[in-house]
Amino acid sequence: MENVFRIGIDIGGQTTKCGVVDPKGKIIAQCTISSLYTDLDDYLLGLLTAIKNLVKESESQGTIIGIGVGAPNANYYSGTIEYAPNLKWCKDKDGNPVIIKFAHLLQEHTGLTTIITNDANAAAMGEMKYGATRGIENFIMVTLGTGLGAGIVVDGKLVYGYDGFAGELGHICIVPDGRQCGCGLKGCLETYASATGVVRTAKLALAQDNRDSLLRSKLETMTAKDIYECAVAGDALAKEVLNYTGIILGRALAEFVKFISPEAIVLFGGLTKAKEFFHDTMIKAMNDNLITIWKEKILVMYSSLNASDAAILGASALIE
Amino acid sequence: MENVFRIGIDIGGQTTKCGVVDPKGKIIAQCTISSLYTDLDDYLLGLLTAIKNLVKESESQGTIIGIGVGAPNANYYSGTIEYAPNLKWCKDKDGNPVIIKFAHLLQEHTGLTTIITNDANAAAMGEMKYGATRGIENFIMVTLGTGLGAGIVVDGKLVYGYDGFAGELGHICIVPDGRQCGCGLKGCLETYASATGVVRTAKLALAQDNRDSLLRSKLETMTAKDIYECAVAGDALAKEVLNYTGIILGRALAEFVKFISPEAIVLFGGLTKAKEFFHDTMIKAMNDNLITIWKEKILVMYSSLNASDAAILGASALIE
Repeated sequence: MENVFRIGIDIGGQTTKCGVVDPKGKIIAQCTISSLYTDLDDYLLGLLTAIKNLVKESESQGTIIGIGVGAPNANYYSGTIEYAPNLKWCKDKDGNPVIIKFAHLLQEHTGLTTIITNDANAAAMGEMKYGATRGIENFIMVTLGTGLGAGIVVDGKLVYGYDGFAGELGHICIVPDGRQCGCGLKGCLETYASATGVVRTAKLALAQDNRDSLLRSKLETMTAKDIYECAVAGDALAKEVLNYTGIILGRALAEFVKFISPEAIVLFGGLTKAKEFFHDTMIKAMNDNLITIWKEKILVMYSSLNASDAAILGASALIE
Repeated sequence: MENVFRIGIDIGGQTTKCGVVDPKGKIIAQCTISSLYTDLDDYLLGLLTAIKNLVKESESQGTIIGIGVGAPNANYYSGTIEYAPNLKWCKDKDGNPVIIKFAHLLQEHTGLTTIITNDANAAAMGEMKYGATRGIENFIMVTLGTGLGAGIVVDGKLVYGYDGFAGELGHICIVPDGRQCGCGLKGCLETYASATGVVRTAKLALAQDNRDSLLRSKLETMTAKDIYECAVAGDALAKEVLNYTGIILGRALAEFVKFISPEAIVLFGGLTKAKEFFHDTMIKAMNDNLITIWKEKILVMYSSLNASDAAILGASALIE
């Protein structure tokens, strides 16, 4: 029987990763292009050239049956990327974000079935097909990146909702009247539990007292990685920041459970590297905020996929 | 073609309503028995007798194909009623709540396929098959009774989750460290937005100031109905109580939307009778707490089913 391959494309703010995935979840060919084009046509030309090369590279080994794309603000139903603030080519001449019929464009130029979804949903698909949740039909994928995204899986299927935007869990209100979020609301989960959220927590902590902290020297350029590294080096304030993040995240996970009653929650993304500093408090906060039927019963796992491959695998898994 | 009928049974704390439902959602025969039996065998005997009579009454007109049951603490997957605190026959000799294989018992004695689910899920089924959400595939049913229950429908199917207990939205935390709930947690939505919740709000308001209010004379025995009637009579404090309830409920509905991205939310139950006093503030609070993609876009509806029939219709709709 001939081999069947899928192309997975992960569109990030900086780079776009493309790969050809075999039925066992092995990436047999891949390449990366810049996402920083300012013109859609230029970006598309770059992407289509990359796809063409990948097809050429793999066509002797099997047949490519479709393209799956994970992208910010992607709508599964309409195949569009809508008003993505971090993609420069997703804007009109005046710099206003627009709607791009991305799946349609790709399908038209390649002749391959193309399905797109947002990054967190793609991650959930990848986890279900190749990762930690094989055999688990009800789970929530939580991606802890610059923001916080979520993919909700019920009975083995992603929940898209009426308009394709279900699972905006980065914007649930975890602290009424809390931190201002870029979305216009206050107290959104991702203003606390994300790479940018922990930096806000650290800066607030540094402003509140005069304690010594390794983080003080990084005040201007601080990243979540700095906080993790300071915690590893034993910095008390950095540890407190991650501990607090665990409490907020645990409380949020408890709310997630009340909606979907999942078997498992899977955490993914850069911030999970610091899990040794937030895992225990997160689990305690989750169980403290669950009713009896769920206490100590929810599996909290971390993605088992190699971080650099996961996005490509997840996107490719959109093609059945 | 022969008529096909379904039996719907709604088990409430006080009474159990049974009805035979025709394919158009008309109840062609019905009866009510007490739910206050203290012994399971006695209760079952009463219920089975009622079912037998209903079958006899309708058998000349068609065939009954199954029994659907809506009950508190009912588990769809296992067919059990689990630790229902308000059902006296759901306890052992020492008064401890137990698990009853209810669907199995009914099926064994009647020979009819029996499916059970909780009250809110049954209400969602009824609304989808016979009520306001015919043709709507993604919605959330919110029942405002003694507590607050919810049925979540995604792509035309009820979400049960891994263990059958999805949609415990009465226990999402709407006020961190807020009111003590019977479930053991604090700040649960149903301690504010339910028949018992509004009474708590009113009692707190009365304790906080010395204002004149018609409610003062009802302090000992106050019900949600009293508050509604006082609001109708123009009582300012009663109106404020319902207004506050609208704000809390609206904030909660916004959270619901972020999970499921529904087309509609349907409200059902006794408290909706007071909607003229909370609807507008509820809608405003919901939209104030939604991100742009959903603002002003979510339909909020009220059940279109006759309240006394809805529970029977909903339960009967469990049978395909």
